[in-house]
Amino acid sequence: MARIRLGMVGGGNDAFIGGVHRIASRIDDRYELVAGALSSTPEKAKASGEALGMPRIYSDFKEMAIREARLKNGIEAVSIVTPNHVHYAAAREFLKRGIHVICDKPLTSTLADAKKLVKAAESSDALFVLTHNYTGYPMVRQAREMVASGAIGKIRVVQVEYPQDWLTIEQDFKQAEWRTDPARSGAGGSTGDIGTHAHNLACFITGLEVESLAADLEAFVPGRQVDDNGHVMLRFRGGAKGMLWCSQVAPGNENALRIRVYGETGGLEWAQEDPNYLWYTPFGEPKRLITRGGAGAGDAAARMSRVPPGHPEGYLEGFANIYSEAADAIEAHRDGSKPDPAVTYPTITDGLRGVQFVDACVRSSARNAAWVTLDR
Amino acid sequence: MARIRLGMVGGGNDAFIGGVHRIASRIDDRYELVAGALSSTPEKAKASGEALGMPRIYSDFKEMAIREARLKNGIEAVSIVTPNHVHYAAAREFLKRGIHVICDKPLTSTLADAKKLVKAAESSDALFVLTHNYTGYPMVRQAREMVASGAIGKIRVVQVEYPQDWLTIEQDFKQAEWRTDPARSGAGGSTGDIGTHAHNLACFITGLEVESLAADLEAFVPGRQVDDNGHVMLRFRGGAKGMLWCSQVAPGNENALRIRVYGETGGLEWAQEDPNYLWYTPFGEPKRLITRGGAGAGDAAARMSRVPPGHPEGYLEGFANIYSEAADAIEAHRDGSKPDPAVTYPTITDGLRGVQFVDACVRSSARNAAWVTLDR
Amino acid sequence: MARIRLGMVGGGNDAFIGGVHRIASRIDDRYELVAGALSSTPEKAKASGEALGMPRIYSDFKEMAIREARLKNGIEAVSIVTPNHVHYAAAREFLKRGIHVICDKPLTSTLADAKKLVKAAESSDALFVLTHNYTGYPMVRQAREMVASGAIGKIRVVQVEYPQDWLTIEQDFKQAEWRTDPARSGAGGSTGDIGTHAHNLACFITGLEVESLAADLEAFVPGRQVDDNGHVMLRFRGGAKGMLWCSQVAPGNENALRIRVYGETGGLEWAQEDPNYLWYTPFGEPKRLITRGGAGAGDAAARMSRVPPGHPEGYLEGFANIYSEAADAIEAHRDGSKPDPAVTYPTITDGLRGVQFVDACVRSSARNAAWVTLDR
Amino acid sequence: MARIRLGMVGGGNDAFIGGVHRIASRIDDRYELVAGALSSTPEKAKASGEALGMPRIYSDFKEMAIREARLKNGIEAVSIVTPNHVHYAAAREFLKRGIHVICDKPLTSTLADAKKLVKAAESSDALFVLTHNYTGYPMVRQAREMVASGAIGKIRVVQVEYPQDWLTIEQDFKQAEWRTDPARSGAGGSTGDIGTHAHNLACFITGLEVESLAADLEAFVPGRQVDDNGHVMLRFRGGAKGMLWCSQVAPGNENALRIRVYGETGGLEWAQEDPNYLWYTPFGEPKRLITRGGAGAGDAAARMSRVPPGHPEGYLEGFANIYSEAADAIEAHRDGSKPDPAVTYPTITDGLRGVQFVDACVRSSARNAAWVTLDR
Repeated sequence: MARIRLGMVGGGNDAFIGGVHRIASRIDDRYELVAGALSSTPEKAKASGEALGMPRIYSDFKEMAIREARLKNGIEAVSIVTPNHVHYAAAREFLKRGIHVICDKPLTSTLADAKKLVKAAESSDALFVLTHNYTGYPMVRQAREMVASGAIGKIRVVQVEYPQDWLTIEQDFKQAEWRTDPARSGAGGSTGDIGTHAHNLACFITGLEVESLAADLEAFVPGRQVDDNGHVMLRFRGGAKGMLWCSQVAPGNENALRIRVYGETGGLEWAQEDPNYLWYTPFGEPKRLITRGGAGAGDAAARMSRVPPGHPEGYLEGFANIYSEAADAIEAHRDGSKPDPAVTYPTITDGLRGVQFVDACVRSSARNAAWVTLDR
Repeated sequence: MARIRLGMVGGGNDAFIGGVHRIASRIDDRYELVAGALSSTPEKAKASGEALGMPRIYSDFKEMAIREARLKNGIEAVSIVTPNHVHYAAAREFLKRGIHVICDKPLTSTLADAKKLVKAAESSDALFVLTHNYTGYPMVRQAREMVASGAIGKIRVVQVEYPQDWLTIEQDFKQAEWRTDPARSGAGGSTGDIGTHAHNLACFITGLEVESLAADLEAFVPGRQVDDNGHVMLRFRGGAKGMLWCSQVAPGNENALRIRVYGETGGLEWAQEDPNYLWYTPFGEPKRLITRGGAGAGDAAARMSRVPPGHPEGYLEGFANIYSEAADAIEAHRDGSKPDPAVTYPTITDGLRGVQFVDACVRSSARNAAWVTLDR
Repeated sequence: MARIRLGMVGGGNDAFIGGVHRIASRIDDRYELVAGALSSTPEKAKASGEALGMPRIYSDFKEMAIREARLKNGIEAVSIVTPNHVHYAAAREFLKRGIHVICDKPLTSTLADAKKLVKAAESSDALFVLTHNYTGYPMVRQAREMVASGAIGKIRVVQVEYPQDWLTIEQDFKQAEWRTDPARSGAGGSTGDIGTHAHNLACFITGLEVESLAADLEAFVPGRQVDDNGHVMLRFRGGAKGMLWCSQVAPGNENALRIRVYGETGGLEWAQEDPNYLWYTPFGEPKRLITRGGAGAGDAAARMSRVPPGHPEGYLEGFANIYSEAADAIEAHRDGSKPDPAVTYPTITDGLRGVQFVDACVRSSARNAAWVTLDR
Repeated sequence: MARIRLGMVGGGNDAFIGGVHRIASRIDDRYELVAGALSSTPEKAKASGEALGMPRIYSDFKEMAIREARLKNGIEAVSIVTPNHVHYAAAREFLKRGIHVICDKPLTSTLADAKKLVKAAESSDALFVLTHNYTGYPMVRQAREMVASGAIGKIRVVQVEYPQDWLTIEQDFKQAEWRTDPARSGAGGSTGDIGTHAHNLACFITGLEVESLAADLEAFVPGRQVDDNGHVMLRFRGGAKGMLWCSQVAPGNENALRIRVYGETGGLEWAQEDPNYLWYTPFGEPKRLITRGGAGAGDAAARMSRVPPGHPEGYLEGFANIYSEAADAIEAHRDGSKPDPAVTYPTITDGLRGVQFVDACVRSSARNAAWVTLDR
């Protein structure tokens, strides 16, 4: 099967996430990166593209979309890895021209943009894949599979958190700068950057949807314009309840995304920093440690795994799994077939839910943590 | 120094916590248990007392208070270890007669009783010690000392939780029965039984007071009359914020009380099930593991410790520490002196705060998790 | 049942282990400490005894044995907690007079003394209990029970280690001084002080006996007269093999006694510093965490346990368990009955094996780690 | 810089390690796989090569070496990923023709082959890189850097182990088959397959060399022709001592390679299954957790790292690091320059030491664990 011709928007020299997407696309050798608008500054776009040996270099994503769509062997898919506020405009141009979009999260910086993008995607034949990369971890798939199979019974309680500490003090480097600027990041700070990951993970594993929430957001660092800590109580459709904590001011936490799900007959616990382990307790029995590839791990995890148990896979492999799921879907799309039903990736619907989550957090917090619904 | 003559109310044969108090009082050999009304059922009181070789056996705490107060060598202190709804009536009788009270938590089953008991204590020369035993763990003392000394700077965020799983299904044994009966336990279920511990621990370590809270309580098990899961957002006086989770329906959790405190310059993490460890991260430095008795542990922990580092002390030693602090205070009281300023134990004020916490949780939850203050 | 009248030899003011024995004897309230020769220095014996409110104070253990044996209510048992080289002489005096001996480990400082003490014990009607206290931990009992019941099949490999770090540098306080003096400690340094614990634990859990060993001992700290690090390969009767490491110069280790046992069908792992957990892996199934008092824990652990799961018990409770097993045996001895068959404690035979282990380590190391048998 | 043209010998469809090498070579995008003799069975070689879209397919490594050496754009380097006994013959052909060799470990299946290969490498201008991949983990580099900088002082004790459990019972699949066949694997079973990793890791981190060892090897599974468990005592040049345990019959262990190094002033601990953590204890201070990319991590780890702290890197990234070090060296070789002095990778000398280690283990064990030197 020929490799998928891939383009990239954003991800120039000093960006972080662009490099991650590129590695992720290479790990399973199913993509070939052939075009990019890595920066909107022409010199930087050129330098960054050349450093990567990129065949076709652009500095304008619209121009790139137009030209690539016309090429006989133009890109089939594009990765959008810009700051949040550019996602909508960029994605629209590619969707419009039938080029599949693999977009970083959150979907957009505003709810209005998110809704417009949903329409754009609905009008397009192209696929839309959102890189909520944590859903690519094998043991996250394992957890989802176990919940679906009834291993812990009807869910009652979800505890999810994503603490970091890098914004404990004021930071002035690039990553911090745009992530704390509401014009580029969106109205949510920690809620948008990492709270969305926590929200998405909770929904992905449980199969539940947040119906309403009550949020108490705070910007602890003086002068910060967006929240750097969020306390959120959740109510899921169907009666389950949850708590979500996101923070960028919790010293001692790097990327401590962690989820615990409790049902009528058992519990599951998973932590992103130790991703090859899933703790499972059937009520009344000893806690069990299920390892990636080890005894007790099922098909959903096995599909997402490359090396034997005890040889840890990490963040990049989880990210690569999203790219491989996308590759399955894109390859099926080439000939109009359907991908394997096991293929799963976050879609534009998940993206909209994420933006609605941030929007709801901000609205609730502005009303003294009143309950608000996500739908608006 | 002669051992303190101790009595006990409650704690008959099939009780759990009475036995714990008795061991705790023995570990440091500063008490002598000489009288008891271990049950209100005369036969059971007699059988339980005899089994313990108790010199003076009563079946009525009031009679016990009256008689002991008259004896030349009557009890100097009494441990009250009955179900919650009896605390007030029993404590009052001993306080009235100048007998020191060591009372299990929560202080009372109702806020009205708590307030009356505060008055009774204020009118008495006797001491009142509340066994919020988790405050007796050496590394909890260590954490409190570090916060007070500024090791983590001004506090921003407190995450505290106390999940259990024993009430995941309906239980009908004695411990479960009274703890899920609002008439005996109080209006709070998990909030009263374990949420109060979490609340107390957060305040003890941080030195902060909860100003207001928003609580979403739930009774997940059908037919249960009190909450078995509580999600609470906290606002502390001075601007810190927190989340508190208590649950009795979280499979895989035994007594997983855990607290994390984050300040402007560092973080602290402690878990009751692994109590000899305290994790400390000064922002921008590697995380450090401070062990009981090991390098980095200070005076406050050393006072509460019996054996060298690496030999774990546990729940009973922590409980015994409260008894020893009480013994220091009682011995000082004997001759009208003041105990060592380092002596620290939970008082009736902490008890009132705990009952106010439960009351606030119940009130907030009844109003759809509206913010309510603790003072009422 | 009347409490057992207990005496103590050694354990004066500045000793460590004496205090531990006293707490251990109190926790379950089955002993009453009524006599002591806490020091061979009369002033110190007096001061130490008075500080404890000891009714009868001696400064000579022989005199104590003679007098107590004559008293109507003299001691029924004696705890011997002196430095190792005194164990033999002291124990002999009490055994000779029918007073039960509870003796700290190692049994003696020389193999000759150990053999003489075995004879003394055989000639006496009194019981001899050796406080290899780690065998008192509930989850050690659990492990032993599981091995005996075949949960891991025939044993192949035993990995046991006991690293500490307190002698990483030269120390001059009392505890270090006698433990590094071969005249008082015996020919083994780390092997005698902690290697014996590791050896004993391995045998206790597996039910196996070490047939031969090859040891490479070293004194890393200049001028030290006894080993501070020992590497030992073990061959058990029946074909199992093992490795044993003991060290007092391993920075970062406090009392990190840890054992791992692997059989034909499963594995078990336990660590003294986290004693409430036992890890169990049936081959081909996920690893399970068995907790003290939790699901999967059996009768052997339950007998040794006081509080519910999730409330950690520690070193002192494990030590107290040895005292309670001894109390069961002593009480049965009072009326000539047999104790409950479940009663288990280390005996003089275990003590002899321990001294043989140290002797074998020293002999082997002197012969460039040649294989030597323990029997001699 | 043009990507390095890479070939591969071995690694056909049903092999495990070939796929790992291919991913490792892709992660940092510095290699292009253009030729392969993936199997010695022509049909399988063809099918495997086509499945990978391999431009030039061979079924004979000698033919491949000859032809590629003649091509203008023939391969610059070859990865040899066959069973051990083929390493020597294959590597020789490429070295002879100036093609760099990246070879899986152990170097060869016999000591004689190893010595011949050393000569072949010495006679060649080409580079020889041995994929002792665990040395590619960032925190292993961190440990090595810390030891070299004196962070733990002069080394006294090294504890290293590599337990697995997959051969607990007889297995008949391909991976098990050749690894337990002395003709293909070499005289060492667990010692050759994983003991060499442990040996190499100990030497890599400490900078020490094993002078002599005493080994007690065993084949626990009936009928097995090579050891499946090895107990080894080590003596390093300069006076440090160590223990090494390798096992394939330890249920509950997947790839539990773990090393602990203790020096005069501190200790270090690292475990392969949790590779982003390094535990560091300066004697007399609290234990510190150094994380990949976090505070306390230095240049040696940073060079080997792609994503921020808290986003785990794993086995494949560690493997890729070896490939990237090799790429640095190969690129420098292209123009006759020297690579950055920081470039570090296991060489043929390390490979010879590994084979000598296995040889010494087998010789020692045959002589009842007598001490033997590695040099022979």
